Amino acid sequence: MKIIVVGAAGAIGQAVCAELAPRHDIITAGRSSGDIRVDLADRASIEAMYRTAGSVDAVVCAAGEVEFGRLAEMTGEKYLFGLKNKVLTQINLVLAGLNVLTNGGSFTLTSGILDREPVREGSGSATANGALAGFVKAAAIDMPRGLRINVVSPGLLQVSAERYGAIFPGHDPVSSRRVGLAYAKCIEGAATGQMVPVD
Amino acid sequence: MKIIVVGAAGAIGQAVCAELAPRHDIITAGRSSGDIRVDLADRASIEAMYRTAGSVDAVVCAAGEVEFGRLAEMTGEKYLFGLKNKVLTQINLVLAGLNVLTNGGSFTLTSGILDREPVREGSGSATANGALAGFVKAAAIDMPRGLRINVVSPGLLQVSAERYGAIFPGHDPVSSRRVGLAYAKCIEGAATGQMVPVD
Repeated sequence: MKIIVVGAAGAIGQAVCAELAPRHDIITAGRSSGDIRVDLADRASIEAMYRTAGSVDAVVCAAGEVEFGRLAEMTGEKYLFGLKNKVLTQINLVLAGLNVLTNGGSFTLTSGILDREPVREGSGSATANGALAGFVKAAAIDMPRGLRINVVSPGLLQVSAERYGAIFPGHDPVSSRRVGLAYAKCIEGAATGQMVPVD
Repeated sequence: MKIIVVGAAGAIGQAVCAELAPRHDIITAGRSSGDIRVDLADRASIEAMYRTAGSVDAVVCAAGEVEFGRLAEMTGEKYLFGLKNKVLTQINLVLAGLNVLTNGGSFTLTSGILDREPVREGSGSATANGALAGFVKAAAIDMPRGLRINVVSPGLLQVSAERYGAIFPGHDPVSSRRVGLAYAKCIEGAATGQMVPVD
């Protein structure tokens, strides 16, 4: 398959590429690196990415940003930042790809564990992750041409544990290998509308 | 208890008031009716509502708007409309109330069934509902002074079935009585961080 991986340079993107590259033709994409540069906040930039890539069978999104903070320090703007930069970005990637992916192709988005196992500073992330789970479940039943859509919800990655571990007390970090496998399950398998946890 | 019900004039708000009014002191609030007028898109308006209400033990939000439409007709802007007018509005109601509610008080928000049982035109609603479930689960563990927070997720109401039933094929509409009971469960019970379905 020919697969676009958006956010390929990040920890999750690298795990996806490591798992898929031996069996598939990978096109990496990102805001500041990759085969194609794309700004997911800009619908025109996403459409340009699809035009450059040509015919593709699957798209992975491993890019997204949210604000972290204790509830008392959060603001509406901080939640909105995550909803725009982790949810709407991925939704726009899907909407722009509805008429682009080959028949039976798939979208695989990325959320995260914090709506399933909350941490004190994670309500912005939990809000965005929950939105993605809801979107994927509903979008799956209205996809054209047999397209599928799922969202992978990884726990804290081992490779990110040193940087972020302090806000994830007691979480058992997951290997990049298991994260990559979850994306393979979505792309090479047949499921749709699913939130696929990696705990 | 003294309880503010925002969106009291709607079908859900009326169900909440019918259940709670016999046992509690209800202050109704809404954009265009109620004891207090409030615009949930405006943090200053929410703060003014709390000042007017004085000491309150519980807040219910039964207000929210999303865009409906088939996936191919949806746009980023339509998803954003729901995220702003059903999710951020309720989040702002919570943030503004964190230092206002009496110790042990509660917030009870409203989502809906469409992230659990999707319909073709409901991906905007599913996205917003999922976000609310994630927010409530995470916010609950960082609430000050024993405050609690839950979200009620009602199915299509019997009183709304004539108007909206066509986009909910096969859904068995729920009675206003059962919807009202779910809010009573959240307010008079002890749960927190829960999504309470009414199916």
